[in-house]
Amino acid sequence: MVIRLLIALSAFQFAVETSFAAKKALPTKVVKEAQLLQKIGESSDLAYQIVESLTTEVGPRLAGSPAEKRARTWALKKLKGFGLKNVRIEPFKVKYWKRGFQEASIESPYPQKLQVTALGGSVGTGKKGLTGQVVRFKTLEDLKSAGKNSLRGKIAFVDEVMTRTQDGSGYGQAVKKRSGAAVEAGKRGAIAALIRSVGTSSHRFPHTGQMNYEKDVPQIPIAALSAPDADQLQRALKKAKKVKVKLALGAESLGEADSGNVIAEIPGQTDEIVLIGAHLDSWDLGTGAIDDGAGVGITSATAKLILDRGKKPKRTIRLVLFGSEEVGLIGAKAYAKKHESQLGKHFVATESDFGAARIWRFDSRFDEKYLYKAEELFEVIRPLGITRGTNRAYGGPDITPLREKGVATITLMQNGWDYFDLHHTSNDTLDKINKEDMRQNLATWASMVWMLANIDGPLKEEEKVITPK
Amino acid sequence: MVIRLLIALSAFQFAVETSFAAKKALPTKVVKEAQLLQKIGESSDLAYQIVESLTTEVGPRLAGSPAEKRARTWALKKLKGFGLKNVRIEPFKVKYWKRGFQEASIESPYPQKLQVTALGGSVGTGKKGLTGQVVRFKTLEDLKSAGKNSLRGKIAFVDEVMTRTQDGSGYGQAVKKRSGAAVEAGKRGAIAALIRSVGTSSHRFPHTGQMNYEKDVPQIPIAALSAPDADQLQRALKKAKKVKVKLALGAESLGEADSGNVIAEIPGQTDEIVLIGAHLDSWDLGTGAIDDGAGVGITSATAKLILDRGKKPKRTIRLVLFGSEEVGLIGAKAYAKKHESQLGKHFVATESDFGAARIWRFDSRFDEKYLYKAEELFEVIRPLGITRGTNRAYGGPDITPLREKGVATITLMQNGWDYFDLHHTSNDTLDKINKEDMRQNLATWASMVWMLANIDGPLKEEEKVITPK
Repeated sequence: MVIRLLIALSAFQFAVETSFAAKKALPTKVVKEAQLLQKIGESSDLAYQIVESLTTEVGPRLAGSPAEKRARTWALKKLKGFGLKNVRIEPFKVKYWKRGFQEASIESPYPQKLQVTALGGSVGTGKKGLTGQVVRFKTLEDLKSAGKNSLRGKIAFVDEVMTRTQDGSGYGQAVKKRSGAAVEAGKRGAIAALIRSVGTSSHRFPHTGQMNYEKDVPQIPIAALSAPDADQLQRALKKAKKVKVKLALGAESLGEADSGNVIAEIPGQTDEIVLIGAHLDSWDLGTGAIDDGAGVGITSATAKLILDRGKKPKRTIRLVLFGSEEVGLIGAKAYAKKHESQLGKHFVATESDFGAARIWRFDSRFDEKYLYKAEELFEVIRPLGITRGTNRAYGGPDITPLREKGVATITLMQNGWDYFDLHHTSNDTLDKINKEDMRQNLATWASMVWMLANIDGPLKEEEKVITPK
Repeated sequence: MVIRLLIALSAFQFAVETSFAAKKALPTKVVKEAQLLQKIGESSDLAYQIVESLTTEVGPRLAGSPAEKRARTWALKKLKGFGLKNVRIEPFKVKYWKRGFQEASIESPYPQKLQVTALGGSVGTGKKGLTGQVVRFKTLEDLKSAGKNSLRGKIAFVDEVMTRTQDGSGYGQAVKKRSGAAVEAGKRGAIAALIRSVGTSSHRFPHTGQMNYEKDVPQIPIAALSAPDADQLQRALKKAKKVKVKLALGAESLGEADSGNVIAEIPGQTDEIVLIGAHLDSWDLGTGAIDDGAGVGITSATAKLILDRGKKPKRTIRLVLFGSEEVGLIGAKAYAKKHESQLGKHFVATESDFGAARIWRFDSRFDEKYLYKAEELFEVIRPLGITRGTNRAYGGPDITPLREKGVATITLMQNGWDYFDLHHTSNDTLDKINKEDMRQNLATWASMVWMLANIDGPLKEEEKVITPK
């Protein structure tokens, strides 16, 4: 999942109109088929097997890297092997950033190493690294209120802690420091910035993720400390007035490189599209199992299960495995641009990109007058232990360009309680995925996608899709 | 804790003789004072504060390193500050081994990095590293049954899994592969060896620890893979017949360096000694909080609490913070040698070196006829949630040379359930220590040490202490 916010929305109850029972958008035979797909999904390890294959045979797959290219080749072969149609790569370019070495240490008064990782997009320090006195800020807001030039020659340390939440809403706040710390520190003359890792892990895993620079602000290197290392630096600062830290980052930008989205379809009876997605790229530290191998597994297995039933859906089911999500939704933007003229045909779009834990909530983003359709969909997946959420579904990071243009979305929200313990760290590996949870995901997705492909339309009209010029 | 075995001993019940009630070794006023010390310990954070100070102000402190020297300076100052007597360093020499760079990767067919750490004492690979086909062995025994020269040019991978146990008994078995894999692989022509980390962590933390070479067997480099990386290599080997791995270790031995034991005392009324110990050195990956900052905290705070009561014990309480434990009990051996002529004066010896979790069991190693004394001691600490264990107390790794010469020992055994999740990894940091657990440790130790210093002797006569030539 990229830096986009998971906005905290208090779940609200939908008023059930008395006329509700009268309206019916889901034909009984569609529900029956969905229930059958649920059963098949509940006893299938296919989603897990796909993640296993991707994370073992490709492993980490950084945007723009040779490994991401290998992932596209892997996907092409896998999806063609499943018998899906129109399997293809839609290429685009991405700025290729590479991590290189990353070292940090307290130089004085308590010499010892600190565990850090460069943030995505950060400039490097040069081989020799740089050393400066650390100035700690409790929050990004505190850094913003520091005086001009007050950090000249120093290293800013933003020590803000992330809140653990089930719906991931703590991430939105926490990520601001990751995006903004280098700019705010750079404006004030700092030579580098450090942040406490975005994430909830208490283990010694620094957390990477994309950062930003701003025009006319000096570009300074920035890295994240693991939580135990941030604690250590905090303690050192309490004991000694002056703490000097050395930072050495080999990070560099290598110019434009190839990336691409991998697409596969189950052709429908009409030209409407139900888009299901996940992202194929990952950060380079772990093997991208929960972010987002799991989503690749869940959505690809969903397509395969539906295909194997041999029934032609009303709408085309389009699986999109986005490239270069982590570095700024580059694949999502490329998709929206390439398919601009076809956006009105996107009946609904949704992505699986929040790990591998059980789905606990169903969110929709339909027109209010069509909310009864969401209720009908929900009733079918409710037995899987799912509650009804809001009508402000996020849909997933790569759905953003479509959502913003008015495409209907749903979110099959996974339990995010542990997600940020692993996300964007070297500890995001296959062993963290529970097979039973993956089965529940697949059962939910397969039944939901079949229903979306066959429910009576529309779901959304009010915010008209902007037609191309 | 070093490689010595924690032998699994089934707890057995002691027959309570009818004459039991008649014998009494603990004067009532000694018990009363012990109970008071318990109360004081239960509300004191001193043990925690000492670990906090050591792990922050010194951090990692590898045997023979400048950091270990800083730790001795720290200890000297801390123990003198407490008002303890005869505070001194007893220096000795140690072979100084340094880690350097450590990298591994699958080269083919699935190129990706693997997380490894060199085992202590391993030779390096040279800058360029070395590459070889991996041959997996389920256990060290399997490797031992491989044919001569069967591994020529290859990398042996011993994938044995460690069993999680409360008393740490899984470590003894698991550690054999760490000690023996390089020798067994070297005998068979391998160019390097890899092991699944000794330890129980499911996170991406490779586990270091001392390894051994044998005379006349080629010395090959050896490293440990984290559990997720061992899983990954295992999966790769299942999918592809031939997996090539590259290993690059900068490890090197730098010859003799200074180390030392730090000693402090509460002088008693007699020349008998109650030795309490912990070790000051740590591996270099973490900050040595649970191994063995916790022990340093618990035993040093014990001495301070007893000292502050202002009562002169019958026996001298001698605190020994051993140096260079991790690399082969070098400090323990130096102590035993230096105090050879005084060993008969060691009434009892015990060490705290099994983490920071609650004490759950009391083991003794007394003569059978004096077991009623162990029962009396036990009754006083029982209210702290402690059960009675065996009469085969291990005493702690640094107690080994004393125990082997017949000195009585006890073990205040801590709960080791999570110990090997952290032990010898970069994740052994202060945040893993629970303050309440440290209070229970301090309460137990303070009361027990006071009793040991004042109980009627002896505890052990049968295995006579060998007097010096």
